[in-house]
Parts: sequence; structure tokens; C-alpha cells
Amino acid sequence: MTQGIDFQTDPSKYRHWRVEYDGPIANLIMDVNEDAGLFDGYQLKLNSYDLGVDIELSDIVQRMRFEHPEVKVVVMQSGKDKVFCAGANIRMLGGAAHSHKVNFCKFTNETRNTFEAAEEDSGQKYIAAVKGACAGGGYELALACNHIMLTDDSTSSVALPEVPLLAVLPGTGGLTRVTDKRKVRRDLADIFCSIEEGVKGKRAVEWRLVDEAVPNATFEAVVRERAEEFAASSAKADVEQGVCLNPLNRQFGDDGSVTYSLVEVVIDRDARKATITLNGPEDAAPADMEAFTAQGDQAYLLRLARELDDAILHLRLNEMDIGLLVFRTQGDPDAFLSHEDLLRNNADHWLANEVLSYWKRLLKRIDVTSRSMAALVEHGSCFAGILAEILWSVDRTYMMEDEFDGDNRPTAAVTMSEANFGLMPMGNGLTRLETRFLGEPEIVDKAQARTGEKLEAEAANDLGLVTMILDDIDWEDEIRIFMEERASFSPDAMTGMEANLRFAGPETMETRIFGRLTAWQNWIFNRPNAVGADGALQRYGTGVRGDYNMERV
Amino acid sequence: MTQGIDFQTDPSKYRHWRVEYDGPIANLIMDVNEDAGLFDGYQLKLNSYDLGVDIELSDIVQRMRFEHPEVKVVVMQSGKDKVFCAGANIRMLGGAAHSHKVNFCKFTNETRNTFEAAEEDSGQKYIAAVKGACAGGGYELALACNHIMLTDDSTSSVALPEVPLLAVLPGTGGLTRVTDKRKVRRDLADIFCSIEEGVKGKRAVEWRLVDEAVPNATFEAVVRERAEEFAASSAKADVEQGVCLNPLNRQFGDDGSVTYSLVEVVIDRDARKATITLNGPEDAAPADMEAFTAQGDQAYLLRLARELDDAILHLRLNEMDIGLLVFRTQGDPDAFLSHEDLLRNNADHWLANEVLSYWKRLLKRIDVTSRSMAALVEHGSCFAGILAEILWSVDRTYMMEDEFDGDNRPTAAVTMSEANFGLMPMGNGLTRLETRFLGEPEIVDKAQARTGEKLEAEAANDLGLVTMILDDIDWEDEIRIFMEERASFSPDAMTGMEANLRFAGPETMETRIFGRLTAWQNWIFNRPNAVGADGALQRYGTGVRGDYNMERV
Repeated sequence: MTQGIDFQTDPSKYRHWRVEYDGPIANLIMDVNEDAGLFDGYQLKLNSYDLGVDIELSDIVQRMRFEHPEVKVVVMQSGKDKVFCAGANIRMLGGAAHSHKVNFCKFTNETRNTFEAAEEDSGQKYIAAVKGACAGGGYELALACNHIMLTDDSTSSVALPEVPLLAVLPGTGGLTRVTDKRKVRRDLADIFCSIEEGVKGKRAVEWRLVDEAVPNATFEAVVRERAEEFAASSAKADVEQGVCLNPLNRQFGDDGSVTYSLVEVVIDRDARKATITLNGPEDAAPADMEAFTAQGDQAYLLRLARELDDAILHLRLNEMDIGLLVFRTQGDPDAFLSHEDLLRNNADHWLANEVLSYWKRLLKRIDVTSRSMAALVEHGSCFAGILAEILWSVDRTYMMEDEFDGDNRPTAAVTMSEANFGLMPMGNGLTRLETRFLGEPEIVDKAQARTGEKLEAEAANDLGLVTMILDDIDWEDEIRIFMEERASFSPDAMTGMEANLRFAGPETMETRIFGRLTAWQNWIFNRPNAVGADGALQRYGTGVRGDYNMERV
Repeated sequence: MTQGIDFQTDPSKYRHWRVEYDGPIANLIMDVNEDAGLFDGYQLKLNSYDLGVDIELSDIVQRMRFEHPEVKVVVMQSGKDKVFCAGANIRMLGGAAHSHKVNFCKFTNETRNTFEAAEEDSGQKYIAAVKGACAGGGYELALACNHIMLTDDSTSSVALPEVPLLAVLPGTGGLTRVTDKRKVRRDLADIFCSIEEGVKGKRAVEWRLVDEAVPNATFEAVVRERAEEFAASSAKADVEQGVCLNPLNRQFGDDGSVTYSLVEVVIDRDARKATITLNGPEDAAPADMEAFTAQGDQAYLLRLARELDDAILHLRLNEMDIGLLVFRTQGDPDAFLSHEDLLRNNADHWLANEVLSYWKRLLKRIDVTSRSMAALVEHGSCFAGILAEILWSVDRTYMMEDEFDGDNRPTAAVTMSEANFGLMPMGNGLTRLETRFLGEPEIVDKAQARTGEKLEAEAANDLGLVTMILDDIDWEDEIRIFMEERASFSPDAMTGMEANLRFAGPETMETRIFGRLTAWQNWIFNRPNAVGADGALQRYGTGVRGDYNMERV
């Protein structure tokens, strides 16, 4: 069995991007190979992209952080004449299943968020150096950069032409970044999003759509100047040597299972369930960050994150019928925490910071995964610190209470660490515990006072850290009933319900993109005006506009 | 021509509710007449509701504020045995068009928000006194009350069974109020929203789903006690006499036009456009609030609000093919402001407060109207103070500049008043000007410094108060092109785009309900798992569960 869409790649396999490393500055060049689409049936003309292009970008952004910590400024630019990027490929979208479109948008959104946050998390600042047409998803790439420079000439413009041209919304955060990041006045945003041709030069600056418009003749020089300026003023410490991200140790079974070195995915197709087991560390924590760095991508916490990340992406895109993800851990919580301690105690070390930031992103990826999710806190488990966050990321948590017949593993416990009180915020800016106890914030303090204690079932339940504790008599039945029930519900209703229940409290640009914008886009992706036989996506390129039902809903 | 669904009603016509007024306490009794549905094909069993039931409720809530200002506590209860309210009628939903379902949910949401805000705005507090089953939309009615009391017996429970039973979401803010108002822990919310039978008694209190569980035997006494307690501690001033809301002066034309005393609606069906003209006051402002009160519902600002409110609702539900609403005003801005001044200068007078609060609600209703909207600031117009808010509620504003040939009306001007700087917040908690200038907050201060000035085109444009100023040569063409363009776009894409562009800045429970929750519900209302021939809504009551496509999106 193959794995379907593979999220693992490396520079030797890139077909669409290249990176020129030049000390603290990296030139990231988009040069899409139009014949190398992920699927048949379309050509990736004009630097348009599909999921394959975005998988490479995601890989680059990740390697930039781990393999090239010397980089302080990334200049994103086009390798084509006259076009920066034409956005997501329309024929790909027209031919794709609804579920693929939605998951494609989610992954691209996550990648945009990742390079947008690189400045804050790692001191790597992204400049979009826009020359030529920059439309739709192309402008959304630029919007996610920290600084946008536009060539001031007759052919360069930024545009979000989705609404007039395709009857869908910009799908990768465009509307939200226009209103909430760029803070464009709403009537100007309305005009901007209604015109196919976009906005050029000085007007684009006046409307806050870009940061600078630079004459064609001096564009490259000014971009270089700006990059050097940003690099010189960067607070990022100088790091000479990164760590290499080698291919994962990963095997696919005939039954859909995936086995990594620390992560196992077992599929139960009848139950529409995937069980993901995370194993604790086999070895003691490295003595210091030098030893950690020497381990490189084999260091426990980095290896675990990479494997879990890959597993989640694989399940999202390649196992659409699996509605329930069940998280288990097995291992020694103390050993896990000793690995975590090393990173937390050295959070100002570049690599410790990168690994912790990666876990922050990975936990957010779990938060927005549109599957029902549960965690089982079994005897012998190691839900401690960062791993305990999973308990509050999933929809429900079941925990073993008291002895189980014939089970001599250490009693199930939840162990909190400092990582649970600020290091791993959700997209809403709160910790998972703060979000969980929005109605009783004093419980967060009570919980924090128990940091480091191994809380067994009753204590964990009293604090509200788990949903339900079950003894040997009830465990199997209760969990079976929950899983059967979950598997019987309409997947659409579960997706909508979970998207609304998971993010209580404040909203941020990020929660808006995954909540509000995504939901509207999903709705529109179901409407005949966009995706029907006479809809805009099908008719794109025929010269005939979509035939719209004009009823307003 | 009839008007289709009529949002005007009065107590003599109620079929589903009755109110017993008893000094500061009003008993609001839901007793739905199952044979009096708004459409054929369903019976409103078990206190289930359709739009007709909600139109009466909305009327009651409004009259409570204007006709019964003596009321400090409203006790919402059921007139049926064993059931509080079973929620929106499923057969009605199963048979309704997508557009009706969506507009039905929007109107019910607005009514819930209105009685929820009655405590803060008017000192009227709503208690839900729940006896019997309280499910789905029934619990959403209770959730919008300020205090929920549940009978602690074997048959009374609160439930949101939509997901397991109907494969849709609770459509009237249920999920959002569970997480953000009641602040229920998310895993408990997940359980609560997954079980058909709901939660009873003390557990409902522990889970924060209700405020009190009261034994059956003492329920009525304790409810009465609580109502008296709230009434006694209310900060609301004693008012003896309200003003009567008489039937509107309203005529429907054969061409779809609607003529009120101050508001005219003209339909251009080919252009899919409705032009709404608001006329300024004919008479001078009343001398004081005594004189205003004596005018009652004929007082200019109350009459204008009632007429405009009715016009908006009529267009939303009865004119689905009209995609563009164009707002015009004609009248003397000074005269308008003199009427407004009286209310603002007497904001502590109960009736002034009610009229201003009504305008706040009405402007929010415009904000969330899912049609493209524009305002034309023409010569002779009176976009001043409260009416100027419309300029920043709509998507675009066009303003006349300089003299127009043969037009001797006073030059077009925008006049700001104190009402534009805090009195009329949007759902996001900001003023419309703050939202507009999120990127340049200093402009709000600059604008405020110009309060009271008649700002003609250039000045208004320099301040960014209008989208575009046009002289006699360009006016007609530019506006025609905009309208033609707008009419040609996919209505779905416009709805989604506008829902994302209109609410920059912070999110609140209100913006979440209209933004995030509504969008997910709309998506689900389009999915075969809910609305297809074998979907849950069609199969409801057959004993056979919906046949679901199990793919997760």
C-alpha cells in the first residue's frame, strides 16, 4: 500500500521552488513547473499552485528554521517574467472533490501562518518582492509575509479576483488578512475584492495593500537594501550550523497502518477510527543542548514531533473516511519530562526554541483537524507536559481508574509541567487550560499549583482535567459506546459542531481564518453558482461567465 | 400585491403567545397553536416554532420595551404540560428552501439578541422558567434569557439534540452561547451536544447549563420569588405609562414598491435593486421629552425606525432576488439633528433611551443584512448623526460633488454628531467609524473634531468618510457601472465576502453567532447528509436514521 499524498519531501526533489542561501538572507524563488502537477488534468501555468507546490513550500519553511538558522530575512519572489503568482490553479480546483479543496485550503493556511509567525517565533522575517501580476492565492502568499514590496510599473499589481472571476472567496486567509492584518478600510476592501485587475503602485500603498511601491528600475536594489536593513536590525542571534532533517523512518502496512520510530497509527476501517500511539523516550535526556544538537533530528522531542505531524497530515488527506482519531501514549512520564525540561530550561537556545515552536504549531494543527478526537489515558501512559496538551486539544478524554485485571503497568496519571501554562498557546491566544476553564478561571491556578504531581484518576477528575474516569468494569463498554455513537453521526454536523466548540474565548486572525472564513468558503464551495455544471469554476477559461441563481440567501 | 410574510402584528392577532402583565413582572407564556403554522404542511406540535411564532415573540419583546416600561422582569414559560419548547419545527425546516432556513435563523437570532440585551439596555431581565423538555431551539430560547431555572424532576431537561438527531447544528446561537456565555467546559459541551436526551437537574447546574435546579413542588414559588427579587433589585426607574405602537402607515404597490409615511422602497427588478429613501422630519423637534412622549409612536425618530425596520425585514424575506439595497435620504440635516439632540440630551429618559436603543438594534440589523448595500449622498440629503451611521454600515458610499445641472437642492454634505462616537456600537463592540479606521485610529479623533460641521464632498472624502465623490459628469455612469457589476456577481460569493469584510476588529458572541456559527450552519444546510433525500431532516420521524456519506471534509 502506498501512502497517497506524501507530505515528506526534500530539496533534491523540489520541482517548483528553489532557494539561494546567502548568509543571513535567503532568496526563495517560486518557479512552478507547469507539467509537474500533483494530479493529472491541469497545467500549473503562470506560477499557479496545487497541493504539491505547497508541500514543497511547507518543507522549505520548516528547513529554513532547522537547517538554516543563519537566515534572518527571506525574500519571496518569482522566477517567472511578468507574474509573481497567479494563485491556486483553477482547473485543479474545478476538478477536485469538495473534501480535497477544503483540506488543501487548510494545509495552505497552516503554511501561511507558519511563515507569517517565523518573525515572532524565530526572528526570520519574510519579504514579498512582487514583480508582475500577483493575484488571488498569489496575493495571499504576499499577505502572509511580514513586508510587501510591489514594483511600481504598468504590469505589476496585487489582486483578489476570486469573487468576480470565480464566484468563490479567496481561500487562504485573504479577506481576513486584508481587514485584520493590513486593516484596509472596508469600502476600499470591497472595491479591491470586486475588481479582477487589482490595484497598482502608489494606490496599493495608500490603500494599505502593500508596504512599498518601488520603481521598476531600482526594484531589485531596493529589495536587497531592505533585506540587508532587516537583517542588520534583526534581534536573531547568529547561528552558524543548523541540524539536518533527514527522511523519516516510516513504513506503511497493507492494512493502512503507519509505523514510525516513535509513533504508530492503526486503522480500524469498520469503526472509522485511527489510533495514534505516541511512545515515550527510550533513552535519558541529552545532558545539555550541545548533546541535543549533536543528536540532531534524532533527538527525541524533534523526532516525535516530525513523526506525529506527518501522521496527522497523512490521515487528513489520505484517510477521509476515518472520522475519529484516538490518541494514546505509552512510556515513562518522568523520562518524558526530563527531555522537555532540557528544552524549557534552555528556551533561549535557538534549537530548543525551534523544537518548542514546532510543538506549538503541531498542537495547533491538531486543534484544527476536522475529525472527532479523543485521548485515552491508560495505565503505562505518559501524558505529561507537552503531551498533556493533547488531552485538552481533543474533544474528550477518558482515563483509567484503579487497577485493571492483569494490567501491571504504572497507574494512569496526568502530569502537568510549566509547558501547560503559557508555552503552547492555542490559535485564540489562550492556553488550552485557560480555554477549558473559561467559566472558572480559578481552576487554572489550582491546576498550576499541582504542577509536577502525578495526578491519578480521581485527582485529575476533581480538577476537571479529563472528561471521564472509568474503572476496569466500565472502561471497554463506555469507550466502545462512545466510539460507535461518534461513528454513526453525520460527519458534516460533527465538523461544524467541533469547529464551534473548540475555540471558546477571544478570536484572533488565526481563529477567524479557520473558523469564519473557512466556513463561508466551505458553504460557497457547495453552491451551484461556484461548483455546479454551469458554475464559475467549471466555466473558467471558456469565456462564458457562470450562470448564477440570483437568489440572495 | 400582498407583502408575503408580514412582520407587523399586534396582541389582538397573537396565536402562539400570551403575556400576563403584573406590575413589574410579566409572565410570557409560549402556547403554540399547532394548527396555525405560517405555511401548510406541518403542525407546530410540542411548542415547536416557525417564523410566524417568532414574529409574535419579536413583537412582544418590542412592545414590552415601549408599551410596558413598568416591566422589570419577564418570566418566559410554557403553557403546555411536560414541554417547555421543542425548538424549531423539523417538518417546516425539512420542507423549507435553503434561503428561507437561513433568513429564518437570522431573524430568530436577532430576536434572541434583543431580549438578551434588554437587561443591559432597558433594565428588563428575562428569566427562563423551564418545566418539561427544553430542546434545541427551546434551549436556545432559554440560553438567551439572563437567568435559567430548571425544574428538578424526572421529565425536565435541557438539550441540544440537533447533531445526533438531525445532522445539523443548533441554528440560533446555541453552540456559541454554550461556550461563550455559559462557558461550559468544552468536553462537557461535546457530550451535551451529542446526546439526544439532554441533561437534567443538578448535573445541568454543575455543567453550567442552567443557573438553578428547583424541585418540582416548589418550582413556581421559587420562580416567583426570584422574579420579585430581581424586580426589587432592578436599577430600572419606575415608569407608569408606555407609548402605544399602532399599526404602521404602509402601502404596497403592484410594482413591489412599499410606501410608508417617511420611508419609500422602490424596486427595480431588472437591476435586482431596491432603493430605500428615508425622509427627514417635516416638523420641528418636540420641545422636550414630555412633548415627545405625547407624540408617541408618531414621534419622528421612532416612526422612522419602525418603518425602516419593517422595510428591511420585508426585503430580506419577501424579495430574495433583490441583491442590492441602495439607501438615500432627503431632508434638512439640521432639522434631523434637532430631533436627535432631544434624545441624546435626555438619554436618561426612559423613552429617549428606548428609541436610541432601537436605532442601535436597527443599525445592527442593517449590518448583518446579506445583501450588497450602498448609500448615495445626494444634494438635498440629510445623512447626519444617526443617519450618517448608514454610510458606514453599507459596503460603499457615493457622494455628489459640486453643482449638478438643474439641481438646486442644498449641496450634499455629511454631518457627524456625538451619536457617531459611541452611542451606536456595532456587534463587534466598536463604533462604525472605529471599525472603518482600524488601521488609522487617529482619523477617528480627527473626525470627531469636525462634529457638527456640514462636510461637503471634498472634506468628507479627505477624511475617508465616503468611498467616492463624483461630479455631475461622472455620477450616473459610475453608479450605473457599479450597480450592473454588483448585479452580475454570484450572490453566494457576495454574501460570503461581505460577511468577512464587514466585521474587522474584535469578535464578540454576537459577531460569532452571525459570522462563524451561521456560516457553518449554512454549509451543513447545503450538505446531503442533512438536507438530501436520504438526509436526516427528510427522514426525521420515519424511525430511520439519515443515510450519511461518511467522508470527513
